[in-house]
Amino acid sequence: MRYMRMPYEAAKSFCERLFVSYGFTAEESGKITDVLLAADLGGIESHGIQRLVRYDREITEGLVDVHAKCETVFETPVSATLDAHDAMGQLVGIGAMELAIEKARKVGIGMVTVRNSNHFGIAGYYAKMASDRDLVGIGMTNTEAIMVPTFARQAMLGTNPIAFAMPADPTDYLFDAATTVIPRGKLEVYKKREKPVPQGWVLDENGLDCTDTARVLDNIIAKRGGGILPLGGSGESNSGYKGYGFGMLCEICTAIFSQGATSDLIYKKPGKAEICHFFAAFDYGMFGDKAGIRKEFSEYLQKVRDAKKAQGQERVWIHGEKEKEARADRLAHGLLLNDKTLDEMRRIAARQGVGAEELERITVPEEG
Amino acid sequence: MRYMRMPYEAAKSFCERLFVSYGFTAEESGKITDVLLAADLGGIESHGIQRLVRYDREITEGLVDVHAKCETVFETPVSATLDAHDAMGQLVGIGAMELAIEKARKVGIGMVTVRNSNHFGIAGYYAKMASDRDLVGIGMTNTEAIMVPTFARQAMLGTNPIAFAMPADPTDYLFDAATTVIPRGKLEVYKKREKPVPQGWVLDENGLDCTDTARVLDNIIAKRGGGILPLGGSGESNSGYKGYGFGMLCEICTAIFSQGATSDLIYKKPGKAEICHFFAAFDYGMFGDKAGIRKEFSEYLQKVRDAKKAQGQERVWIHGEKEKEARADRLAHGLLLNDKTLDEMRRIAARQGVGAEELERITVPEEG
Repeated sequence: MRYMRMPYEAAKSFCERLFVSYGFTAEESGKITDVLLAADLGGIESHGIQRLVRYDREITEGLVDVHAKCETVFETPVSATLDAHDAMGQLVGIGAMELAIEKARKVGIGMVTVRNSNHFGIAGYYAKMASDRDLVGIGMTNTEAIMVPTFARQAMLGTNPIAFAMPADPTDYLFDAATTVIPRGKLEVYKKREKPVPQGWVLDENGLDCTDTARVLDNIIAKRGGGILPLGGSGESNSGYKGYGFGMLCEICTAIFSQGATSDLIYKKPGKAEICHFFAAFDYGMFGDKAGIRKEFSEYLQKVRDAKKAQGQERVWIHGEKEKEARADRLAHGLLLNDKTLDEMRRIAARQGVGAEELERITVPEEG
Repeated sequence: MRYMRMPYEAAKSFCERLFVSYGFTAEESGKITDVLLAADLGGIESHGIQRLVRYDREITEGLVDVHAKCETVFETPVSATLDAHDAMGQLVGIGAMELAIEKARKVGIGMVTVRNSNHFGIAGYYAKMASDRDLVGIGMTNTEAIMVPTFARQAMLGTNPIAFAMPADPTDYLFDAATTVIPRGKLEVYKKREKPVPQGWVLDENGLDCTDTARVLDNIIAKRGGGILPLGGSGESNSGYKGYGFGMLCEICTAIFSQGATSDLIYKKPGKAEICHFFAAFDYGMFGDKAGIRKEFSEYLQKVRDAKKAQGQERVWIHGEKEKEARADRLAHGLLLNDKTLDEMRRIAARQGVGAEELERITVPEEG
């Protein structure tokens, strides 16, 4: 695969025009694009423009209702439950987190659970919305079932990511992780390269450890059993039941609190995704002097950064640093997109009758 | 090691009398005993009576101030920050969770962060206090640094357990897990048995994978580097940085919010533990119809239980079930205590001038 650099502004302009072509307003298109490109800027290619082909399909096939509005079905001063009515996940996520932030400003904390939504991009985007306002932020989503619980051979939970952000200097702390060992995208990359996956990532159709990438992915698609392991791996030896527990925490906050669809039901009804999300924001000033708390946290993170390194290693990373550094690189030198993604962009643009003049601004081919 | 059965009531009576001998009131002794024996009842031997020797040392050496009272240093309707002033961790934990529950009943949610405490036993006890009242409960504590962050060779975080409870039928969901691959106690068990630990549990003094149990444990005690890996293991292949992130989440909620000691500072000041905790309770009725939410959750858990089993496996467990079944067994047949623990009980009782007549009620020797 060949990687090219595309200026951020060009990609932004292209995506915004494209989303308008589906019927979103200019403001909505700007929001969707911002979430999408936040992934590419942060170096999380799997959740960036390469997903455009998926969003395009879900919008044109009607899983996403372009005109749907989120409805608040239950509310208290500290909480809300929303029915997204199949709206675009990114718009749902931004609106729900804004509501959580508004509640956090009024009463210290806001928790918002959402049902009947669509894929919302990276969970970290929403957690970061809160930390950008000097609040603690949490974002979660369930996804189509792919995580096999400990001792099972049938996927019952999604990759179920949990994101958590807390302000710090010089870089806000931002954790965003699937509760499976790996995300599905990583399996797809190994399949493209025709490489076996390492032991401890996936299970075959009998619930046994397996390294045959193609077989496992085919089984997942055909729903023949097997799937990705929870964080911690198979059986109990390396505590895979803990990843399964964190995945369940996500399921509870998203699907159970909202009385929506659990991961095993997602994408099962024709024309509906039924994905559920959870967002929380709270003001850490509820525990005392904000400046003091922020300073102590920043100093602790610096001590962790300065910890003695493992032999052969040069750096201990704090969550959020890699994304921040990737962002600086991508803003200066352009997003990294592979030729397959660029072809998809051209094809979608042509079908939507949208010009793709921004794609002429790809100037720096680069090896990926 | 030989295991014996001791009736629960006998163990309770013994512990209560013992804690009174240190200067705790009868009510306080009852609370401490309840937390301690909840571990033995739930089959979590590592955190039960076998820890008596540690509590005895910490009380008699003055790390625990028997007469200390928790002080509320900051408070809002949804939150509180407590300074435990070196009080007994179990009393601190119960008091703090009761405060969180009281706030949850008034305004929907209560979050309480605590500094300057001592070891509080199992985090799950406190989460369960909330679920016993039909609320969601969260309990966390930091501990002496033993978790080595990804790419480091120096422990910077504790085992940092996170517990989470949510009511369900027929068994409340109760997740309680260290964010390291294994707890320290498991390493100690392997050392006693002179067995190497499996690959992926610990690092040597150079930050490299290692299976030499004695060497790693000696390094930890002498603070020569190395320690236990975060959930997910070493490096990035199996996502050990995720366990490191969940450990950091615990550190933020406990030490950072309370402006107390982070794990790297615990047990560093003479005569002080400085452990920090976090508790949260919230009413899931803030998201809608409680009965409906509880019913949906219970049905989903049943589907997970009924998931197709991996080849060679007979049961998919829900978190909390093993503890519930162990509890029924221990209440009927007695706690399982090994002869070393029983010797320690006799020795401590003799020194404290407390009779140990309950120890005569051990009737059923059993192989452990």
